[in-house]
Amino acid sequence: MSKTNPGNFFEDFRIGQVIRHATPRTVTTGDVALYTALYGPRFAVQSSDAFARAINYPRAPLDDLLVFHVVFGKTVPDISLNAIANLGYAGCRFLAPVYPGDTLSTVSEVIGLKENSNRKTGVVYVRSTGYNQDGTEVLDYVRWVMVRKSDESAGIADEHVPELPAVLAPDVIGAAVPLLDVAGYDAVLAGSPHRFEDYRPGERIDHVDGMTVEEAEHQMATRLYQNTAKVHFNQFTEGQGRFGRRLIYGGHVISLARALSFNGLGNAFHVAAINGGRHVAPLFAGMTVFAWSEVLDMADLPGRTDVGALRIRTVATKDRPCTDFPYKLETGDYDPSVILDLDYWVLIPR
Amino acid sequence: MSKTNPGNFFEDFRIGQVIRHATPRTVTTGDVALYTALYGPRFAVQSSDAFARAINYPRAPLDDLLVFHVVFGKTVPDISLNAIANLGYAGCRFLAPVYPGDTLSTVSEVIGLKENSNRKTGVVYVRSTGYNQDGTEVLDYVRWVMVRKSDESAGIADEHVPELPAVLAPDVIGAAVPLLDVAGYDAVLAGSPHRFEDYRPGERIDHVDGMTVEEAEHQMATRLYQNTAKVHFNQFTEGQGRFGRRLIYGGHVISLARALSFNGLGNAFHVAAINGGRHVAPLFAGMTVFAWSEVLDMADLPGRTDVGALRIRTVATKDRPCTDFPYKLETGDYDPSVILDLDYWVLIPR
Amino acid sequence: MSKTNPGNFFEDFRIGQVIRHATPRTVTTGDVALYTALYGPRFAVQSSDAFARAINYPRAPLDDLLVFHVVFGKTVPDISLNAIANLGYAGCRFLAPVYPGDTLSTVSEVIGLKENSNRKTGVVYVRSTGYNQDGTEVLDYVRWVMVRKSDESAGIADEHVPELPAVLAPDVIGAAVPLLDVAGYDAVLAGSPHRFEDYRPGERIDHVDGMTVEEAEHQMATRLYQNTAKVHFNQFTEGQGRFGRRLIYGGHVISLARALSFNGLGNAFHVAAINGGRHVAPLFAGMTVFAWSEVLDMADLPGRTDVGALRIRTVATKDRPCTDFPYKLETGDYDPSVILDLDYWVLIPR
Repeated sequence: MSKTNPGNFFEDFRIGQVIRHATPRTVTTGDVALYTALYGPRFAVQSSDAFARAINYPRAPLDDLLVFHVVFGKTVPDISLNAIANLGYAGCRFLAPVYPGDTLSTVSEVIGLKENSNRKTGVVYVRSTGYNQDGTEVLDYVRWVMVRKSDESAGIADEHVPELPAVLAPDVIGAAVPLLDVAGYDAVLAGSPHRFEDYRPGERIDHVDGMTVEEAEHQMATRLYQNTAKVHFNQFTEGQGRFGRRLIYGGHVISLARALSFNGLGNAFHVAAINGGRHVAPLFAGMTVFAWSEVLDMADLPGRTDVGALRIRTVATKDRPCTDFPYKLETGDYDPSVILDLDYWVLIPR
Repeated sequence: MSKTNPGNFFEDFRIGQVIRHATPRTVTTGDVALYTALYGPRFAVQSSDAFARAINYPRAPLDDLLVFHVVFGKTVPDISLNAIANLGYAGCRFLAPVYPGDTLSTVSEVIGLKENSNRKTGVVYVRSTGYNQDGTEVLDYVRWVMVRKSDESAGIADEHVPELPAVLAPDVIGAAVPLLDVAGYDAVLAGSPHRFEDYRPGERIDHVDGMTVEEAEHQMATRLYQNTAKVHFNQFTEGQGRFGRRLIYGGHVISLARALSFNGLGNAFHVAAINGGRHVAPLFAGMTVFAWSEVLDMADLPGRTDVGALRIRTVATKDRPCTDFPYKLETGDYDPSVILDLDYWVLIPR
Repeated sequence: MSKTNPGNFFEDFRIGQVIRHATPRTVTTGDVALYTALYGPRFAVQSSDAFARAINYPRAPLDDLLVFHVVFGKTVPDISLNAIANLGYAGCRFLAPVYPGDTLSTVSEVIGLKENSNRKTGVVYVRSTGYNQDGTEVLDYVRWVMVRKSDESAGIADEHVPELPAVLAPDVIGAAVPLLDVAGYDAVLAGSPHRFEDYRPGERIDHVDGMTVEEAEHQMATRLYQNTAKVHFNQFTEGQGRFGRRLIYGGHVISLARALSFNGLGNAFHVAAINGGRHVAPLFAGMTVFAWSEVLDMADLPGRTDVGALRIRTVATKDRPCTDFPYKLETGDYDPSVILDLDYWVLIPR
């Protein structure tokens, strides 16, 4: 028997199967510094202990997406080592703040399986939950991914396609943010005068700036998350593959788009939930990422007057500025420049 | 009204205007590790808590230039987003040590304005001050920068060119270094036998080593400082611009030259002041940086016998070793290899 | 007299000479994060404070090879600045755990000298010992390196070739691992079901995955270790040299191979000793590193029932997968793809 991990193939999964993933990870200020160096985020709450304390955090929490990537990374060896494509995310909620020194681990449950008609692949739906060292849930989300079969003739015991929420309701989000002392929120230090009430549904914002990605950057990021997906690291093999080069981890694009979105959404300091996300097209090193956002909706959070929620669609493009908000063509297909279509809730002081 | 930051144009500034910059930043041992990985500094005081304690620091302070870059980075969105060129620095003093865990923020005052004769641009002079979380000043400096006008016909209320000191006097520098227990200073561990008395004015030192810069490195550095100047990150736009490629942040060159200067100035562990600095020519990825230094002056610090001050000119070049100390041509122009001309005070044990 | 370090030439060394190396270094969680970003290690003990505490560590120790690289880096300015080749390592023992906050320094003793028949170079053997801030030995090892003479006519006082152990005996290894509470070792979280008893001598494991190295990555790594060997950083000079490009620090290859070896040796969390190592061929940026291992031997550790020792040979290759375990040709020469041949002891729970 081989001692190396072959990963799971489609026929290896069962509905209801629970997988505890390997490699718990203590996150530190070292990870925070690297995250800053890789994306350049400027949200004051995550950047400054002093700022965070002034609004009632014990100290600066980790960037939400850093938490997401670490929790996600652990699932790769069990869920997507034999994946062809990461098809989507849904129902992602940030449930508790994470601070330097916390240790993260991940458990997944298989909640759906659907074989493709070619019988060579199938779609696996998993709900993954990130925990801290106290067993507190810090994050959960569903993703679905197309996975190869090892044996085309293998039968599938039980198929099921789960119903997933298109949008998370405002009353189930926001738990990762303590009740804030908004009087302590210094908008000048935060870098934007615009609070909840200053946005309106339908508003579109070009985030203006562009960021070119280098191979060393996305490799360092992806290893930082202990994400072992082979396509990101192995030029020898990928050079002979479909694209002829290494593929950039989709989460890297999400973090770049989020960092770019500071320019226009500077007070929207917390990603409370990801309603859905699609990696529309691959990104490769040497390309420049741009982004724009649309306010899809606005909501009060039950029982809270400190913050409101903006439902945002952020679209990222490659090698195309977003002055004219590129999105979908008349055919309904995405503009060829679009690489990410992300629908999420952010919290912003009122 | 746009929610993105258009930056200030020349006509938006007023003499006496005070700008509190966004994004306070808690600096950590994570930043220190990245700074080490980016430049390879070897000054023992900043490298070792044990070494620092032996000479009367509570722990290893941050590298002075890391502090400079973080404080500087905050000014970019307000001062130089529409800049054409960063023209110079003067009167830069390091005023208090900064330790991991401290939170830095920056305030600037406009102290000079001078429109150019073409009426398309003008020079803005600002004095920027970095503070820690207690409100203690850790750094101040003046820089001047050429900024575009948005409206060529806009008038300028008040013009003034400030007088700037060519050199800071020894009695206003050194506050960032506690009174040292020099008996605890282990020159073997520090890596150099040469103390204050071993240098003499006019002495020139070739720092020998060269360091090639990669795109990923300067981008990570510049984002670490939350410096948002567009020219460093966006190959899509810069590829169509004057140079056809991304420009490396001038401060990256200063840090490289300072790290290289360890070889010859190994005990000069603290940059106490920058008298003046010019980025003579741009640096691009793939080029190799060399440096040499001249001792311009030597000074006692009033009331201190632990350390003396060396006034140093460090010249950095690209793709040219400094064996023969390249500097200026007979015409008075800089040698085409020169990229940095920096005049500063360092402290060194006696 | 020059103030820059010319390094030592072969004739400058004497048998019995003791060299205290410069630049003590406090290692931090920042270094740990960078090490993770550079290599992607997944051994649970080093990744998680919670996991480490569950088996009787006070917190997660540093990766052994990070300690090795920092201790090694300090020796370069004194031992190998004028080296032509790093010929080998032997007798390397990890003697005490290192934690974030510890300060490392290195002392070397010259234990052997042998001039080459061309009288232009000679081989220097040094035993280097790394210490923490308490003076506790954390690591010692012997390396030998071919060093240039400055003056071909210089005589050598005393020549001696030390006898070096081919293999360290099991009773002198393991001191860096506290007595473990193996009941607390969660193999699911660790990512592998295979314990000591599951391996057998002669077993070979292809570690499957490949990792492409970028210039920015190996430069950042090597600077992080404050290793100043010129060949890794200076494209201007190396571009005119033998290879036409920068050479990657051999220790970078060791760390990559070790990180790849997780896939198959996931519970072998500690490198207890390096019996011997050879950098068979150089590695350059853009190449992809693969690795495979053979279990050479298995041993009990005297007085310990918590862990056993596996003696492993790990072979790393460039641009060649290891499905068929490339090693030596029929001629006895190495396969041209092989870049590293490392013989070491790892500890693994029973």
